[in-house]
Parts: sequence; C-alpha cells; structure tokens
Amino acid sequence: MDFALSPVAADYHRRISAFIADEIDPIEVDYHRQLRALDNPWQVLPIIEELKAKAKSAGLWNLFLPSVLSNTDYAPLAELMGRSFIAPEIFNCNAPDTGNAEVLVHFGSEQQQREWLTPLLAGEIRSAFGMTEPDVASSDATNMESTVVLDGDEVVVNGRKWFSTGIGHPNCKFIIFMGLTDPDAHRHQRHSMVIVPVDAPGVKIERMLPVFGFHDEPYGHGDVSFTDVRVPAENVIAGVGRGFEIAQGRLGPGRIHHCMRLIGLAEKALELACTRAMSRSAFGKPIANLGGNRERIAKARIAIEQSRLLVLHAAWLLDTHGIAGAISQVSQIKAAVPAMALEIVDMAIQLHGGAGLTDDFPLAGAYTAARSLRLADGPDEVHLGVVARIELARYKTAATTTANGAHT
Amino acid sequence: MDFALSPVAADYHRRISAFIADEIDPIEVDYHRQLRALDNPWQVLPIIEELKAKAKSAGLWNLFLPSVLSNTDYAPLAELMGRSFIAPEIFNCNAPDTGNAEVLVHFGSEQQQREWLTPLLAGEIRSAFGMTEPDVASSDATNMESTVVLDGDEVVVNGRKWFSTGIGHPNCKFIIFMGLTDPDAHRHQRHSMVIVPVDAPGVKIERMLPVFGFHDEPYGHGDVSFTDVRVPAENVIAGVGRGFEIAQGRLGPGRIHHCMRLIGLAEKALELACTRAMSRSAFGKPIANLGGNRERIAKARIAIEQSRLLVLHAAWLLDTHGIAGAISQVSQIKAAVPAMALEIVDMAIQLHGGAGLTDDFPLAGAYTAARSLRLADGPDEVHLGVVARIELARYKTAATTTANGAHT
Amino acid sequence: MDFALSPVAADYHRRISAFIADEIDPIEVDYHRQLRALDNPWQVLPIIEELKAKAKSAGLWNLFLPSVLSNTDYAPLAELMGRSFIAPEIFNCNAPDTGNAEVLVHFGSEQQQREWLTPLLAGEIRSAFGMTEPDVASSDATNMESTVVLDGDEVVVNGRKWFSTGIGHPNCKFIIFMGLTDPDAHRHQRHSMVIVPVDAPGVKIERMLPVFGFHDEPYGHGDVSFTDVRVPAENVIAGVGRGFEIAQGRLGPGRIHHCMRLIGLAEKALELACTRAMSRSAFGKPIANLGGNRERIAKARIAIEQSRLLVLHAAWLLDTHGIAGAISQVSQIKAAVPAMALEIVDMAIQLHGGAGLTDDFPLAGAYTAARSLRLADGPDEVHLGVVARIELARYKTAATTTANGAHT
Amino acid sequence: MDFALSPVAADYHRRISAFIADEIDPIEVDYHRQLRALDNPWQVLPIIEELKAKAKSAGLWNLFLPSVLSNTDYAPLAELMGRSFIAPEIFNCNAPDTGNAEVLVHFGSEQQQREWLTPLLAGEIRSAFGMTEPDVASSDATNMESTVVLDGDEVVVNGRKWFSTGIGHPNCKFIIFMGLTDPDAHRHQRHSMVIVPVDAPGVKIERMLPVFGFHDEPYGHGDVSFTDVRVPAENVIAGVGRGFEIAQGRLGPGRIHHCMRLIGLAEKALELACTRAMSRSAFGKPIANLGGNRERIAKARIAIEQSRLLVLHAAWLLDTHGIAGAISQVSQIKAAVPAMALEIVDMAIQLHGGAGLTDDFPLAGAYTAARSLRLADGPDEVHLGVVARIELARYKTAATTTANGAHT
Repeated sequence: MDFALSPVAADYHRRISAFIADEIDPIEVDYHRQLRALDNPWQVLPIIEELKAKAKSAGLWNLFLPSVLSNTDYAPLAELMGRSFIAPEIFNCNAPDTGNAEVLVHFGSEQQQREWLTPLLAGEIRSAFGMTEPDVASSDATNMESTVVLDGDEVVVNGRKWFSTGIGHPNCKFIIFMGLTDPDAHRHQRHSMVIVPVDAPGVKIERMLPVFGFHDEPYGHGDVSFTDVRVPAENVIAGVGRGFEIAQGRLGPGRIHHCMRLIGLAEKALELACTRAMSRSAFGKPIANLGGNRERIAKARIAIEQSRLLVLHAAWLLDTHGIAGAISQVSQIKAAVPAMALEIVDMAIQLHGGAGLTDDFPLAGAYTAARSLRLADGPDEVHLGVVARIELARYKTAATTTANGAHT
Repeated sequence: MDFALSPVAADYHRRISAFIADEIDPIEVDYHRQLRALDNPWQVLPIIEELKAKAKSAGLWNLFLPSVLSNTDYAPLAELMGRSFIAPEIFNCNAPDTGNAEVLVHFGSEQQQREWLTPLLAGEIRSAFGMTEPDVASSDATNMESTVVLDGDEVVVNGRKWFSTGIGHPNCKFIIFMGLTDPDAHRHQRHSMVIVPVDAPGVKIERMLPVFGFHDEPYGHGDVSFTDVRVPAENVIAGVGRGFEIAQGRLGPGRIHHCMRLIGLAEKALELACTRAMSRSAFGKPIANLGGNRERIAKARIAIEQSRLLVLHAAWLLDTHGIAGAISQVSQIKAAVPAMALEIVDMAIQLHGGAGLTDDFPLAGAYTAARSLRLADGPDEVHLGVVARIELARYKTAATTTANGAHT
Repeated sequence: MDFALSPVAADYHRRISAFIADEIDPIEVDYHRQLRALDNPWQVLPIIEELKAKAKSAGLWNLFLPSVLSNTDYAPLAELMGRSFIAPEIFNCNAPDTGNAEVLVHFGSEQQQREWLTPLLAGEIRSAFGMTEPDVASSDATNMESTVVLDGDEVVVNGRKWFSTGIGHPNCKFIIFMGLTDPDAHRHQRHSMVIVPVDAPGVKIERMLPVFGFHDEPYGHGDVSFTDVRVPAENVIAGVGRGFEIAQGRLGPGRIHHCMRLIGLAEKALELACTRAMSRSAFGKPIANLGGNRERIAKARIAIEQSRLLVLHAAWLLDTHGIAGAISQVSQIKAAVPAMALEIVDMAIQLHGGAGLTDDFPLAGAYTAARSLRLADGPDEVHLGVVARIELARYKTAATTTANGAHT
Repeated sequence: MDFALSPVAADYHRRISAFIADEIDPIEVDYHRQLRALDNPWQVLPIIEELKAKAKSAGLWNLFLPSVLSNTDYAPLAELMGRSFIAPEIFNCNAPDTGNAEVLVHFGSEQQQREWLTPLLAGEIRSAFGMTEPDVASSDATNMESTVVLDGDEVVVNGRKWFSTGIGHPNCKFIIFMGLTDPDAHRHQRHSMVIVPVDAPGVKIERMLPVFGFHDEPYGHGDVSFTDVRVPAENVIAGVGRGFEIAQGRLGPGRIHHCMRLIGLAEKALELACTRAMSRSAFGKPIANLGGNRERIAKARIAIEQSRLLVLHAAWLLDTHGIAGAISQVSQIKAAVPAMALEIVDMAIQLHGGAGLTDDFPLAGAYTAARSLRLADGPDEVHLGVVARIELARYKTAATTTANGAHT
C-alpha cells in the first residue's frame, strides 16, 4: 500500500498548482466581475483564450485523456482544477467536453474524430450532452422519450433535453444526443447516440435554465427542443442501439472527475472558512473560537480526507479492475462526495455571514454547483440503490432458502 | 391546555386561506414569469396593487399589529402568508415594514407617525432597516461602526449598511438606521435609531446584493453607503441612546413572523414534494415508494409539526409573559426553524430532480429565503448561545462552589 | 390556544413533583445500590411498598386512568414520573400494567375485573403483556404464530412470546396473551387476547433477556414459552377475534405515556449534563465552555421542548378527536421521541466521560431504556411508514390519474 | 499510489482470515454462552489457551510488534481480529497488552523486559494500564492527581485509577501506572510511569465497573485504589519525568489498532444486518426492501470504506513520516471511526428488532465497545480540538495582523 503520488502525477501536480497560483488565482475574481458587468455575458473573454494558450504550450492540456494519464494519476489534478470555476476550461479538462471526447476516442469513426474530436481536443470548439428530459423521471433511463430514427442515410432526431450543460457557450458546436431507436430491442440495445450540430435546423434552445438564480455564463444549462432534426446517419456513434453501452463507459471516469473537482471545491471553501474565522472577531474572540466552530472545521477536514481517499481508491480500482470491478465504488463516491462538499460550503457560508450569500465570495456559486451534482449523472438515491444492490447480492442465497424468499 | 385556534384567529385563518386560494395562487406563477421578463423588474406590477386593494377592503390588512391580534392569533396567519412570495405584501404584513411599523407605533413621535407610519400602514410606501454592516461581524452589536451624531438640530449619519432588505422597491421611502451615538455610554445606551429618507443627500445604494444568484426583485437587498447624511434631529426615534432598547423590542414578534412564514414555506415545499412523488414514476413505481422517500416525507411532517408548536408556544409566551419571559424560546425558534425549513425544501428539490433547481418551481427561491434566515436577525450560533446561557444559568451556583469557577 | 396546565393538572403536577423530590430522589441511588448487592435482585424491597402506600394515601395513585384524568392532564405527570426508574411503580402508573388495566376497564368482563383488575389497581399484583415473538418480524402483526384455540369451555394457548416486560416481578400474576384464533377471518378479526395466569401449567419463562447487559430487575423482560396452556374460555377478553381491536385501542395512550416518560428522562439527562458541565473543568474552563458543548446543550433544550409540545398536542388530539383523529400524531411521537431522548442521553454520557458508562449515574440505564423504545410498540420505521401513508393519502387522486398510477 | 496489500500483509491476511473462520467463528457463540453460565466468569476457559497455542505455533502471534510488521501491514489484520471479541487475545494482540509491550520494547530496561515483557509476549501473563482518574476530567492530563514519588530506592505510588481494562483477568500481573512526580517541572516532564505488580500491598480493586450493564469478563474494567504502594525504583520506566513522552509514543499505533478493530466490528455488524434483512420478512417483503433500509445499508458500506481508507492512510503516514507527521490524522481517525462504528451497529440492532438488544447477537456488546471508544484514549471532542488546532495553525499569521488577534 502506498499513498504517495506517482512521480509523473507529482510533477503535473506541482506544475498545475503553480499555474493556478500564478495565472488563474490573480485574475479570477476580476474575470467574474467583468463578465457579470457585460450586457451579454454569453461570451469568451480574451483572458480565457490567453490562459488556454499558455496552458497548452506548457503541456498542461487534455490531461484527462486515458492515453495521457491513468485515472489515479489524473484525479489529484482534477481536484486542483476544481478549486476554480475557470481552470477546467483553461486546461481543456471541463465537462462535458471530457466525456464527449472520451466517447469519440473510443467509439468515434475516423470521420467523426476528424470533424469533432480534433477541434475539441484543440480547445477550438466546445460541446454539450443531451441526456436528461424534462417530462420524465430521467433517473430511470427506460423512461426516455426522445427518439433517434433511421431514415435512409439520415437519422431523424426528436425530443426535448434539458440540463444540456455548456450549450450556451458561443463555441459550442455539437451535442451528443441520446434517444430511443428500437423500443422492442433488449433493454440495453434500444438507444442510440448521435452527434447533432447545434445549428442543425430543428434544434432550438428554448431557454437557458437558472440554477438557484445562476445561469453559469458563458456555459449555461440549456432546455433544448429537437424537432425533426435530420443529420447524416454517419453521425450515429458506433452504430444504432449502442447508446446504453456508450453511456455506461462514459460514466466511470466522469464521476471520478466530478468528485475530485468537488473535493477541490470543498478544500477551497474550507480555506475561505478558516481565513474568515481567524480574521473576523465577535464577542472578543476570533470567530473560529466561538461555539462549535472549531469542531465544524475539524469535521470538515476529516470529511474531505475521507472523501478524497474514497475517490482515489475508486480511481485506482477503475484503473486496475476496470469499470466492472468498480461499479459500487463509483456509485459510492457519487452518493457521498457532493453531499460532503455541500456541507462544507454551507459551513463556510455560515462563517462568512451575509457576505457568504453574495458574489463577494465564490461560496454561493460553489453551493449551487455541488447541489446540482446531487442530481446530475444520477441522483444520490439511485447511486445508493446501486451500492445496496451490490452489497446485498452476496446475501441472496441465504434469503431464497427462507419461506419468504419472494422479494424484489 | 388547548391547541385550538381562537374564534377570531379561526375566522381570519379561513378568510386568508380562501383569499390566497382564490386570488393569489392562480396568478403567482404568471406574476413571477412576467416580472422576470421585464427589462427592469424593480417595479410594482398592477396586479399587486389590485390585490392589495382587495385585501384591504376585505379587512385582511395589517393583521400583524399587536392592537389587532395577539402574537398567538397572528402566528397561524403568518404561516399562511409564508406559502407565497407575494402574499405578505398583499396583506401589508411583509418584513421589514411590519417591524418598522411596530417601532413607530411604540416609540414614534406624533410627527413621525403622521409622516411615516400612516402611509406605511396604508400600504402607500415601503421601508427598509439598516443594521448589518459589511466590514464587521455584525452578530456582535458592539462591533457596529456606523455613527449617528447630534449636531445642533440635525443628526449626521455615516456608515455602511448592507442587507437592507426592501430598499430596491420603488415605493421604499425611508430606512430606519441604527448607529453609534456615544461610545462611552453604557453598553446598551450607545446607539440611536434614526429615520433616514432614502432620497436624502449622501444616501447611495452601492449595489443590490445577489443572494445565491437571486436579487428578489422588486424588493432586493441593498448595500448602502451613508456619507454625512443630515436629517432633522426629530427623526431620531425615542431619543438618542435608545437604539438598543428599540432593537430588542422589535425582535420578538419579528422572529415569530419569520419563523411562521418559514413553516408555511416548508408546508408548501412538502406539498410540492408529495405531489411530485405521487405523480412521477421510475423503476415501475411512483417516486414516493422508492428508497427512503417515504421516511423523508414522514420526517418532514414531524419536523413541521414540532416547529409549528414550538413557535406557537413562543408566541403564547410572548403574549402572556412578555419578551423577558420568552427570550430563550424566541432564540430557540430562530435557531431551529430555518434549519428545518431548509431540510424540507432541499428534500423537495431532490424529489423534483433538475426541475427543483430551476424557477419552474418556487423551491430554489424558497431555499435561498430560508438560508438567508440562518443569518439574518442573528446567526443560528448566536441564538444557540443565548439558549445555552439561559439553560446553564440555573447551574451557576453549583459551579462557582468549585475551584474552577472562573468561567464566562 | 392556551399552553397552561389546567388547574387540576397543575395541582397534581405540584404534588407529584414534591413527592418525587421529597420521597423518591433521596432514596433512589441507594435503592439501586441495595438491589444490585442482593444475590437475588428479583424481589421487592420494603421501601417500594412503603412509598406506594404513601403515594396511595396521598391520592397520587392510578392517575393514568381515563376516568381520573384526560391524556392532556396526565401527560405532564407521566413526564415527571419518567425522571425516575421507580416512580412509575410507586404511583401505580407503570407499563405494562397501565395498558393492561385500561384493556380490562374497557373490555373486561365483570369477573375478569374482579379477579384481575381490582388487585392490579390496588397495586397488589402486577402483570405482563405477550405480543412480540422471537421467530418472526413482529412489526408485522400478520406474522404472529402463537395460537389461542377454543376447545369447549377452555382455550388452548400455544406459542412463544418474548420481551414480556415485568414478568420477572415476584408479584406478576398474569399475562395478557395475544394469539391467532382464526387464520381465515378478516385480517382484523383473526386474533384473540386471553388472560393467562403465570402459574398455569405449560407457561415457562425460558430466560430473562438481557438488554445491553441490563436485566432491569425486579421487572425484567421474559422469553416465555406457552405449551398447551389451558385456561377457562371466560379468560378471553371481549370474545374471540377481538384481539386486534383491543390492541389498537391500547396503543394510543400507551404511546403518550412512554413518550412523556422519555421526555422526563431526557430532562433528567440534560440536568445531569449541565451539572457536570459546570462542575468539572479541563484546559482551564468548565467543560460547558469547551468545543461545541454549549451548542449541544442548546440543541438538547430545543429538542426537548419540541418533543414535549408534539406529545402534548397528540394527547390533546386523542382527547378531543379520538384515536382515529390522532393516528398520524401518535406515530409521529413514537418515531421522534425515543430518538430525541437517545441523543440527549448520549450527549450527557459523553459529558460525563467514563463515569457516564457506569452505574454511578443513571445514564447508561436511561440510554438502554430509550433504545428499547425505538423497537418496542413498533419500530421507528413502521411508525414513519404510518405517518407517510397518511401524509400521501391526500395526494392519491392526483397520482392515479397518471399513467403510472399502479402504486402500492 | 497503490491500494493493494503488500505480499506479506496479504499472506497474513489470508491466514488470519482462515484461522478465524476455521477455529474461532465455530466456537465463539458457545464460548460466550459457557462463560456467562459460570458462577465466576472471571476465568480463562481452556479453549482460549488451546487456540492461543495453535495461533502461536502457526506464527500468527504478536503481529502488532513494529519489528514484525509496519502499521500499514498490521492494520488490515487488526481489522480481522476486531470482528471477534476473543480473537485479539488468541493472536496475543489485545489491548492494553500491545501498548504495554511496545512501551517496554522501546523504553524498558533489560530487567523490566526480562521480568515483564518476555512473559507478556509469550502470552503467559496479562497487564493493565492506569491512566484515567475518576475525580477529575482526565481528558486534560494536567488534571492528574495520582503521584509517583521517589523515596530512596523505592517509589511510592498513591492515587485512584479507573477504567483499568484487563485488570480482572486472572493472569493480569502488572499495571503500568502514570502519576505526578514533580509538579514544578516543565508541563511535559512532570509525570512518571512505573510498573506496579497487581499483588503489591496497597493495590486494591475497589470494584469492577459495569459498562452499559456489561462487565466484559474475564477482562473487565477496574476501579483501583493505590495507597502508599511501594515498588523498587527500577520499576520506573525510562526514568522519572518521562511519563508524558512515553504516553505520546504509545498512542499512535494504539489508536490505529483500536480503529481498525472497530472497522472489523462494523463490517461484522453490517454482515449481520444484511443477513437479517434478507432472511426476515414483513409486509410481504424481506426487511431489506422496506423503508429506507437499503439506503442505510448503502451508507453503511460507504462509511466503512471511508473509515478504512482514513485509518490505512494514517497508518501509512505513521510509518513514513513518524508520529509528528501524523498527529492530525491519528486524531481524525479517533474522532471519526468510533462514531461510524456506532452508527452501523445501531442500524444493525434496529434491523434485528428486540433480538438486537439481547445477547443472542454480539450487537449490544459491539455497541458498548464502540461507545467506550468515544471516550477512551481521549474523547472525540479533544481529538476534534487537535484537528482544528492543526488546521487553523496555517492561518495564524493572517489573524494576528488584525486588531483582534489576541485569541487562544
């Protein structure tokens, strides 16, 4: 057992830390202020492209790619990026582009890779992912109502998707859309994924969704309708009926990334909390020394450490045993880490008083981001259900030998 | 012991319920949609004035006034109003106008009452309250840095106040400002309260504060600077040095109202949660029947019942024993009820999936409102400190007989 | 709404308080020490009979009887008794005798009342209740395997019951046994209750159950087998098939009593916690002022107040609306109050350090008593299920109009 | 980063697992039943000595010694042993003998090692540790009132110690006693540790303490008085004034062991919970599928995984960075793991219904053991204080630059 970073991970860790400290931290507050002051905040400020260029030339680019780093090695870097709202894009490691890129790496045709993957990995375009639907409980994939129907050498796409994150970005050029192709096929072969250009006729962003009052410009979360959208059949990824299979493979690393970024977010919130707690005083003491604040800070430290180790272990399992050997662990982190981050961010807000609610600190935004992740990529409850199912599977035999074996 | 509403409370309860059901519920969603669609949402839509007129002519107006109803009788009405974001204004029962009106009823000079109280009670103007300051931990009132200095027949007001709720409203005409008058006086006689017209020279709204991304138009929360603002000395309420005394009296009923409105909010959230849980299905069952959802719903019901009883009991104590006999109880409700409401609203959000995060439902707004109340009017921790101090006071004698008696 | 005790309740409250302070508190620690020192602790020490005689002659006797006091008036007295492990017996108000007496008052024949009820109310004999069975999940009454079979003018009783509380007491003379009479009858008419003398042939106490290492002498919790026990048919209460009906009526007041006693227990634990927290010092301060202790004390106070109000309200509902109008509320208190008491007792244990684990303080015993009540009379989960079912019933119509209406 | 067991750890893990499965599991229930049936349970049943001999000859003996295995390698073995109440003794790895042995290995004189360490490591004798005192808050070591006074070539030992675990064992031959030698010395050089034979004149076991009704025979927790006990000065360990230093070194590995054993206990409880949940049915379903049970099982799995990783990481830090590099982490595990174990054991009890409270299952005993560890070796609150102190230390500079810098 060895908890030390590998030499390659340690080297990237040092360099990413330095880049964030030197290039991103000094400008991030100003960046957000500038963006908010714009009449139209749905744009890319020049500083972003400058920093992307710097990161790229420093070799701190696309590190999420499995061909570059293992999950175990990448995870601590995702944590660092999660401390900032803009770092993931600057290192070209932001969701959902990372997941989309992975899909195209593994399943994309040569043409798909040339047309969409290459510019995505170059940071020239961005992308979205169309999975969740407003009218059904999307936690159960069999509820999906959107359709992808083959019609000659075209496919016809219909349906409504929301929480299509990133679709508000001016560089967002395509969305990977998942829909029902054959309702009569095996449960895992009914769906297809297809690349839909966002400017295809019939694609309409009905509105950008507020999340706790935030629109997360310039990325945003779209409520998008698709009406008889026709795209070439070669836009289908890996062939019709393979949507479910692709979705599954996409989720393991994606959840590792989300969770590690949340750990970075929680660390940032704890830092802000401690800084505030030591620098403001009330009743003759620094706030840190009032009431249960020290206990809350200690518990936050413990919770972060436990969460980080849980995610790193899941990443290591994914690397060494594959997704099949890490299903429970990936659901464990997804159920545990957003809740942990929320509690710490909330504690930090409370220590900041009213200021914590405003945009003077990144805390309300952090809370919102973490809260969304208790729902995105499957709500907590679904992941707990997966963990319980796997846990109880070991006991099935015992149960079926009883008279009351007729359980679900 | 009798838990039934008094006849007068029961009658008002029935009528307010009916008014909300008949007049407010049918238009509230549209109202918010209309307001959000405006370029300038800092305005009063005609429907609001229409409904205010109806409520007034129905005698459902200013019911918060102690001369109209006791706290015990008013509390269940505040609960009803808390189910809606606009009902409090429609019944002329919204904070901070209610607290300001009470201050002027009890402490206002005849002239102050004529000039400010009468139009306030008529619903013609609105008001704000200036207490919290951005640069110090305002939970400790002795930290207050703003000043109210007597200069001949004027007072000079300087300082910065934020979270001045309601100051964005076009009808907001005055702010009750609290500041330091005599730093050398007894701890409870240093501060004064003064009525400052919002259009007085030197008053500047620096910005309207976002709270989790919301601006709560058209009320809003102002960050306001006061620079050498001169107002007539007769604007001082009840004489210099009485600010602390006035503030104390203001807080008992105010906290009852806040907490009862939060209970209404929690009931509304639970209703939405149950409706959703029974009307959406996943994995072949209504969501209500999945995982721990029924337990969460049951616990929400229990938490609401406990909270309501706690607040009603505090209101009854306030009525029967005065504020001095209800200090612990008023802090108990302030520490307990916002946290309860948050948990239930959060549960409702989770049951709504992504929709719960958006403005398709009033849940994200409800969360934000409840979250603010873990800080406004004293953070939880300060109230818990009050409850503990009173609890432990009974044990002081025992402790001082030990060798280690030198405790705070 | 009026939260004051009625004059009659206030008078009893004062007198019971005084009796406990004057007669019970001074001897309770010694009593337990003496009992533990005996080779056979399954006996009644003379002090108990002396105190019973005093209580009886003071008119503080059988106050639980509905003919004496309403639930609302009795509840605060049950709280007082719950502060002591022996007070309930001294006032002849201890479970399960109270419940058994109520059953005999309402459903007993004249002969049953003469033979069993009269000496029970006189405090001359004690009784037990046989409901829970070791081999099935007894939270579901339909699992019950014991039988009560009519055979001429006798009934034959077979089965195994455990957690028959009080059966170890030397004066315990009968057990009310519930068993299956007619498996084919309507679900609510299958069971019968029958009075079984504990010395009837075929009744065997297999063992007295330890609960967390305690045996609760001289009451105890029996694991009892019943093998072809024959008793006269007139021992059946209210006729065969009425067991379920009787059980239902028994539970409302019983749960009120249990919960109020737990509130007394929690108050006692909080007193001990505060006393300890103020009288011991570490790191130069009384323990009360360390870490989050004051917050924990404040939260304990709030939790007790909320729980007491919840139970009193349930008692009032029971009095004014009957059991049918209080089903949810009775389940609410049963799910909420034991958990509350456990948390406070646990906090008190922690503040006592190692001493809290021993029998130098009544805390470990209190914890065990409260823990048992998360299971006895229905586990928390069953009660939460009842509360959820009633809550969601209001929403059923909405759900059945959807396509997914086929829910349980 | 590598989460796999080292080859040597993996080998021991396999062998200890097999030994427990083959030799201990089959006899443990009977062992406890036999012991409880004895008039005097303070004895060693022959089966224990047989199993010890087998374990010794299999080389599964004294594996806790740092000269045998690193903390990282030993930790997973401690987890296995923690699943059973008797396994630790059988592998000669039970507390407090392990800690006492480590003290003697590091600090014992040649004579001390010959006389006390050799038979201890041979499993021929057992030992106790005298630290906690009944009359003071022992969480603050400066409160210690016991004395160890040099008098010629003897030391005189006076004081009272309780929770001297293991002193009831018939083979317990010595206690390591910590007392005050020089109240005027530096805070860390006031205390001495001395070996006191339990049969020395003046040593008196006043009573064996019940812990939640359990006496943990044949080990037990003693309340022991020391009255003018005279032992040779060479019994002082490492010289007078070094007690604090020795105590510190003892605690790192000891807390790792305690926590890993608790993780084993929690795993065992979860296994029992799942077994019960799948094999009992109510309301037509296995209990596992009722209410929130699956969520609770999933959360238990997550909590165990997080805790195990936290302890393993602390063990690895201890091995690679020494105690100075692991102070926060060791306090983190001590604050987090007992609470985690309690929650899981409590959940398992609840799933077992009344049976969970009895000795039909090892759950009530497990609860008691875990509860004790929220107090033993420092209460949670002290450990949280350590974690907070280290966390906030990084922020001190910022705070002292403010006007309010005078904090503790």
